[in-house]
This record gives sequence, C-alpha cells and structure tokens, in this order.
Amino acid sequence: MRIASLSDFLLQRIDRGREANGARKAVNRQIYQVIREAILDQSLPAGLQLPSSRFLAQELKMSRNTVTYAYDQLLAEGFLESRVGAGTFIANTEPDQIVTAAAAAAPAGPLQGGELSLSTRGQQLVELAGVSKTQWGAFMPGVPDVTQFPNKIWGRLQNKYWRRSRSELLTYSGGEGYLPLREAIADYLRVARSVNCDASQILITTGIHQSLDLVARMLSDHGDHAWVEDPCYWGTRSVLRSVGVRTVAIPVDGEGLQLRPEDLRHPPRIIVVTPSHQYPLGMVMSLSRRRALLEYAAANNSWIVEDDYDSEFRYGSRPIASLQGLDVHERVLYLGTFSKTLFPGLRVGYMVVPPVLAESFSTGLSELYRCGHSYTQAILTDFMTEGHFASHIRRMRVVYAERLRLLHEAITFHFDDRIIITGGEAGLHLALGLPDACDDIAICEAARQQGIIVRPLSKYYSDAASARRGLMLGYGCVPDEQIRPAFDILAGVIKAHWPGAHTQAERVK
Amino acid sequence: MRIASLSDFLLQRIDRGREANGARKAVNRQIYQVIREAILDQSLPAGLQLPSSRFLAQELKMSRNTVTYAYDQLLAEGFLESRVGAGTFIANTEPDQIVTAAAAAAPAGPLQGGELSLSTRGQQLVELAGVSKTQWGAFMPGVPDVTQFPNKIWGRLQNKYWRRSRSELLTYSGGEGYLPLREAIADYLRVARSVNCDASQILITTGIHQSLDLVARMLSDHGDHAWVEDPCYWGTRSVLRSVGVRTVAIPVDGEGLQLRPEDLRHPPRIIVVTPSHQYPLGMVMSLSRRRALLEYAAANNSWIVEDDYDSEFRYGSRPIASLQGLDVHERVLYLGTFSKTLFPGLRVGYMVVPPVLAESFSTGLSELYRCGHSYTQAILTDFMTEGHFASHIRRMRVVYAERLRLLHEAITFHFDDRIIITGGEAGLHLALGLPDACDDIAICEAARQQGIIVRPLSKYYSDAASARRGLMLGYGCVPDEQIRPAFDILAGVIKAHWPGAHTQAERVK
Repeated sequence: MRIASLSDFLLQRIDRGREANGARKAVNRQIYQVIREAILDQSLPAGLQLPSSRFLAQELKMSRNTVTYAYDQLLAEGFLESRVGAGTFIANTEPDQIVTAAAAAAPAGPLQGGELSLSTRGQQLVELAGVSKTQWGAFMPGVPDVTQFPNKIWGRLQNKYWRRSRSELLTYSGGEGYLPLREAIADYLRVARSVNCDASQILITTGIHQSLDLVARMLSDHGDHAWVEDPCYWGTRSVLRSVGVRTVAIPVDGEGLQLRPEDLRHPPRIIVVTPSHQYPLGMVMSLSRRRALLEYAAANNSWIVEDDYDSEFRYGSRPIASLQGLDVHERVLYLGTFSKTLFPGLRVGYMVVPPVLAESFSTGLSELYRCGHSYTQAILTDFMTEGHFASHIRRMRVVYAERLRLLHEAITFHFDDRIIITGGEAGLHLALGLPDACDDIAICEAARQQGIIVRPLSKYYSDAASARRGLMLGYGCVPDEQIRPAFDILAGVIKAHWPGAHTQAERVK
Repeated sequence: MRIASLSDFLLQRIDRGREANGARKAVNRQIYQVIREAILDQSLPAGLQLPSSRFLAQELKMSRNTVTYAYDQLLAEGFLESRVGAGTFIANTEPDQIVTAAAAAAPAGPLQGGELSLSTRGQQLVELAGVSKTQWGAFMPGVPDVTQFPNKIWGRLQNKYWRRSRSELLTYSGGEGYLPLREAIADYLRVARSVNCDASQILITTGIHQSLDLVARMLSDHGDHAWVEDPCYWGTRSVLRSVGVRTVAIPVDGEGLQLRPEDLRHPPRIIVVTPSHQYPLGMVMSLSRRRALLEYAAANNSWIVEDDYDSEFRYGSRPIASLQGLDVHERVLYLGTFSKTLFPGLRVGYMVVPPVLAESFSTGLSELYRCGHSYTQAILTDFMTEGHFASHIRRMRVVYAERLRLLHEAITFHFDDRIIITGGEAGLHLALGLPDACDDIAICEAARQQGIIVRPLSKYYSDAASARRGLMLGYGCVPDEQIRPAFDILAGVIKAHWPGAHTQAERVK
C-alpha cells in the first residue's frame, strides 16, 4: 500500500453514522482500530512511513486532533514508532524469532478443548463438585430464610457509614479484620458458645471455606493427612484436596467420630469435626469422645478444626457448648459463620485460633487474599452491639422450630415410623434414612424434575458402595405453608422409588 | 461428695451480684457452669445421682425453672444422663481408653510453640510475606485515594436495594457472579481494554489474589512450573507457591518479559505477566514480545495470566490495549480489579477466561469458596451502567496526573537526573532507581521511622544479591500538598544512605 492511499483506505472503513443512543460514532477511535488491524494482518507492513498527522487530517477533512489521538495511541501501544526528524513509521511487531522457533519446535501441537487442559486437581474439583446450582426453595439444605432478615435496620446502620466516607474502612485491611467486630464476636462466643477466647485470637474470613483453606495451607503440607468425618460436608473434602491434603474418612456413630485402633496408629496433621451438630447426620459428639480427641491431638501434634456452622439454632435446649471450650492444650481451631445466622451472601465468617497462631494466621490471610470489607464489618459490629444479632437469632429459632415441626408432621403423615429422621434437634436441615435398596440419587433427580430440591445422603460418604441411603432436607428457607405441599410431592417420589412398592407408586402417580 | 451437699456446694459458688450494666447475674447459667466444672475436674464423679430438680430448687430457695434450665443443658451436652424411673446421674465422660492409650504411646510429646507447628508452606508464606501492615499514607504503593470516592452516590444506589430485601441477592450465588455485573464488565472491557469477551466468559472474584489462586488450582498441579516476571508482585509468588507451584523468575527489560533460549526449552503450565504496566517497574510489553508469547503459549499448552491491575490510569495516552485482545488461540486469562479504580475494601475483581474454561471455573470458584456478595454486585452494576464508574476514572486520572507531576518535580528538585524514574506513565506508583551500593531496605526502615512508607525495589526480585536497588513510591493516596513535604523527608533519608555522601547527609540532618 502506498502512503498516499492510507486516506482512501481509512475513508472506506470509517463509519460516520450514529450509535444506538444517537451520539456520533467516535472517528478517532475508528482510525486507531483500522490502522491497528491493518498492521496486525500485515496489510500495512513494518517499516512503512505514515503521512504526517497534518497531511492525513487534510486528506480526511477532519480536525488534526482526531488523527493525532489515533497516532498517539498507536505509538503508545507500539504499533507505530516515531523517528526524530524523519517521521512516523509502522513498527516491526513481528514475534521474536527465537521464541517462534521454539514454538514451532514444540513436541505436541496445541491441545483441543479446555477440559483436557485442566490440572488433575482442577478436574477432580469439577468432577466431584458438591455445590448445588440452586440455592433457594424447598428443600434446599443449609440455606436460612433471608426474607426475614431485618433489612431496614441493616440499611439504617449502613447509611451511617456511607454518609461520609472514612478512608480506613475503604482501603485494604489487616488480615485479622476489623477490631471492634472481633471484640463483639469474642464476647458473643464466650457467652453463647463457651469458647475460650479474646479478640486477639479472632480472624475475620469470608466463611467456613476460606477459614478451612487457610488452616490447610498454614498447618499442612502437600501429601499430609487429614481426618474427616464419614459422612461429611462436601466443601471440607474439596477444599482440603485442592491444596494436596489427603483426606482419611473416619466413620461416625451416635456419639460422633468413632476412632478405631488402626486409625490411631497414624496421627493426622488435621482433624475436622462438627461436634455440636454433625454434618450431615446431626448427632452431638459425646463428652467422652470429645475429651479423648483433645488428648489424642495434643499428644500427637494434630490440629483439630471445629466446624460450628449452624449450632446457634438448637430447639430442645440451649446450643451445645463448643469443643474448643474443653480444650486445655490449645489444639483447637474453631470456625464459625454468619451465613446461617444472618444471610449467606454477606460472606462473613470467623475463626478462633490458639494465641500462638494468631499472628501467623493474620499474615497468611492477608498475604493470600488481601483483605478488605471493613465497612461491612463495621456495620455488622453495630448490628451485634445494638442487640439486633441476638434478637434475630431468637426470632429465627422460633420460626425454624415451627417449620421443623411442620416437616416432622408431614413426614410422619406419609411414612409413620418407616423412615428414621436424624439431625432434627438443631440447624436448618434433617436427614431421612431410607432402606439400603433405595436409590437416593435417583430420588433426588426425580424430585428435581418436579421442582423439589433434596440431596442424596449417600453422596456425603467417602465410599458410595457402603454409604447409607437417605435424603437431606433443608426447611430453613421454606415458608410454613409450602412445607406440606412440597413434602407431599416429595413423598410421592420417595414412594415411587421405595423397594417393592411398585403398586403404591402407581397409585401416587 | 454426698448428694445432700450439692446445694451447699452450689450456694458457695453462685454469685448473686449484678453485672456491670446493673442486671442480675443469671443464676441458671451459673448452676450449669459450676456443675460442669465440677464434673470436668471430677469433684462430681461419674455415676453419682443428683437430687431431683424440685428438691434442689427447694434447698437453694430458687424457682424450679432455674434448676431445670441447668439440668436440661447439662443433659443436652452429655454431662448428665437421665435413667427412666431412677433419676439423673453424672455421666461417664472419661475419654475412651483406646484413644488415651494411643495418646500416651505417642512417640513425641506435644510441641512447644505454634510456629514449630506451621506447615512448611505456611512458614514460608509468613517468612516471605510481602504484604504491608500499613495501607495508607505517603508513599504507600498501590493504594488509590479512597477519600475521593463518590460515597453519596454509592449510598443512594445502595439504599435502593436495602429498602426491601430481595432473597436472590442475599443468599449464596453461583460461582460466576451476578449476570448484570458480568455484562457491564464485558461492555467496559471490550471498549476500554480491547478485551475480546462476552459476559459468559466473566467470573466475579474478590480480587486478583483469588483469581490467581483459582487459576493455579484449576490449571496447575503440585510441582508444576509457572513463569513469573523478575521483579514481580509479591502476591503472585506467594499465591502460586502456597498451592505448590514452582515459580521460575524470568527477567524483564525495557520491552517486558525477556525470554532466553534456555527458558524456552522448558515450557511452563502458567505464565504470569503484567503487559500494560509491568509491576513494579512500569514498562509496557512490546508488541513483538506479546505476539511471540502468545504463539509460544499456544504451541506449548501454557496458559498466560494477564494481570491488568491498574492500567486504567495512564497519563500520556489512552490505556494500552490488553494482551488478551491480540490472542487468537484462547490461551489468555485476563485478571482485573476494582481495587484501584474504586476502592480496595470493596473486594471485587473479575477474570475473563477462554469460553472452554468458563463453566469449570465457575464450578471451581463456587466449590472452593462458596460465593455471595450479590447485593454489592448489584449496586456496582448500577454504578457502572449509570456512568459513575467511567466518570470517576476520568476524574481520578486528572487527580493522579497532578500528583505524579508534583512528585516528579520534588524528585528533580532533590536529585536532578541522578535518580532514574521508571513506571511513571501509568498507575499509582513509580520506581526510583538507586545506585547498587545503596541499601534500599535500610532506607525504607529509616524512612518508616520518620513516618514515610516506601518499599525497597530489591525485595521484588527473586534473588536479592543480583537485584536492582531502588524505591517504590505510591502517590495515589497522598494529597497534593503533602507530596513535597513528605518527599523532602524521604530525600533526606536517601541522601543519608547515598554512597559517599556522608557530609551531604550530615548537612541534611
């Protein structure tokens, strides 16, 4: 292409029309784009001299600024180069010869399909993913009723902070989080959860997942072992495995983690338990087991992670005191969250670590994630210190207890005592035990097609073959009046899959 | 202890006084605690029968409810057990014999001190931590001026969402984030950053750190190699190492990443670059290098991570187009953040991934972190679509350009051309080059004692011995009028540490 023709080349490609909103299309940006593409596809070859911006502007009948804008941007991005006293030239942007030679000599050509290019751990994460696409509706487990959240109170507290900006709340924060919130949480945990702590041991995280991720990286190395309960929360397994920790599944019975002599011979680095409300089955770890676990961990330099995800909601008694509160050896890391007590989208959780770990954990959290959200933490502090947190929990405990009662009633109506209910003394879900011959995965799939979400108990076990069959039902986010009709539908599905209940199933349909 | 004496035992220990706030101390809670402790220290032995709650209440001259409360809680927590027709007994809470035997047989006793118990990677993370305890003031790099954030506009948009709660904004969200925000970001990136994308390729994260962490886990395994620039951002190294990725430092020159033939023979899984504004030195990667890198990555199945942390703020020209926009092989993952353009505490970042990875990455993000913050993402969407984002960037570009000019002026006043300034064409910081004989770490320490924060350039290199000496100065969060006085102090410190400038240093003092 001759220089003289650049103006023709541009004029053919520039669109002088208007945008959808009526504004003229920006011509300077178009000149930039047309020249850029022409350089990349080599219709404008390296070394070619461009006309001066004054000359080109005259040819195009445009202001010189329009052309200068495009030239300046192309210069800044390296498409053009300016030689003093000589003019403006197309730069040589051909790739480095050494590098392209190396590329050409690559043993294999590029892979096709991104899945092939996931790492082994990435692929495992996706294949074994436990997270649900749906996060609302009957009977989604683990989701509180966020429609009952006192949003007006929250909004009022929020306004206080946003009316004038306070720079310390808007910039990065220290890894440990906002001090007044840590103090409020320490006060709360001491009284409500019998946790031994002060604010210096508290770190604010985005929830149980981040807390556990930090614990795994700070306290275990690739290839180390962690004991997890069998069955257990899917997130525990996924987070640990994704940082190279090998999970060893230890069965639970009515008293919680059931240690067998062969397990005891191989002390793990980390032991993750849900002592106040086993996830998913719901039993409370017995005191005798608690004391044994604490002694064992102290003697073997294992760390115990106490995942206390929902025990604020206990219906028959006050919440069970924490395992951490019994520990005299400082081997327990206590994890909690506001996801169930306030709302999940808040993404605020906390951990209580032994004093000797506090500073390292704060540095680690900050180094791995850079922390912020201080303004949210400030609002949450006021929400707690003004008493709204405690009263919201009290109010929701009554709401959930009623929903639990309604669900129990519906289950009994359909199944009398043919189904064993576990875990219904606390939290936001219960587990229905099914006969071994029931395919709980098929039931969940069939229920989903009728708009009901339930999760198969067998999926929470490490080994599907020996897993107990059952269903996880969340009642937290289901309005009272929907519980019975939704369970009626689910009961139909269960009956259709009940071993030897073919005729009954036909009748239900 | 005889049963009859339980009431005396309790009466000696119950405090009938008042709390600091004047309320009576809760006696029911005290009965629970006294009995609990007595069981744990075995002053109340297992098997002992307790008096009935009616009898004990009479002895204590309290209401029966008070005693029942304590008994119920102790029953729920397993301290007591109730035998039908017989009464209430202290439960056997002695630890399991098998487990305690295993604990006693542990080869080594418990470690002393938590540091000893950090994992190797945890210890490395803490020892090599780059994150600063301070996040505000002259001359903290990487921090925008959050006092200029239009908090009233944000507050107004926020109120719209909080006036009535919308459950879908308060519960868990899908890993990919809030769709309208992803659309707004895609629109923005196409125009402002020449990124080829649509909303389906965008994932919302909490910032560059989380984005990089996800990339590392999804696309690389333990022991895999990643190329990083030398020098580079401390966070890049820390995040990659903490998931077992081995970082290979590749030097940068005036054109960015400088690939040497020996590097090319060992293709890495991941290549992390900052092409628009090299961190920390500030150069732009040349087009020739960009094209070569893209070809090399495609041929060798490497993934390129483009960390585009602050290139919205470029002062001489419009922002440099992204590397992703040049890529035809879909090997680039583009990372951006609102930390510099809005405020760091917001903790919202985004990544653009090749279409083939989008679904896996969404699942991975959700599985590893559980996602939320939809209400924040909704507010941010309005902030962008109503034009406040673009106008805030325009306004701040002028503010920062002026601060950069003032800082340049101050540097020139003190050092003429004895100090080389790099990276001052874009972003929120610049780098001052110092003679090799200057101890930049000592300068930073001395400056800190005079209230000035600067960071030593040598710390950003992989090898301290061959590192260039210099200082990183952030001017983003320093008000105009503080720049000169703050630099005057810093100049004094630099002169005091300038090789062979002892007399001059004395004069400055």
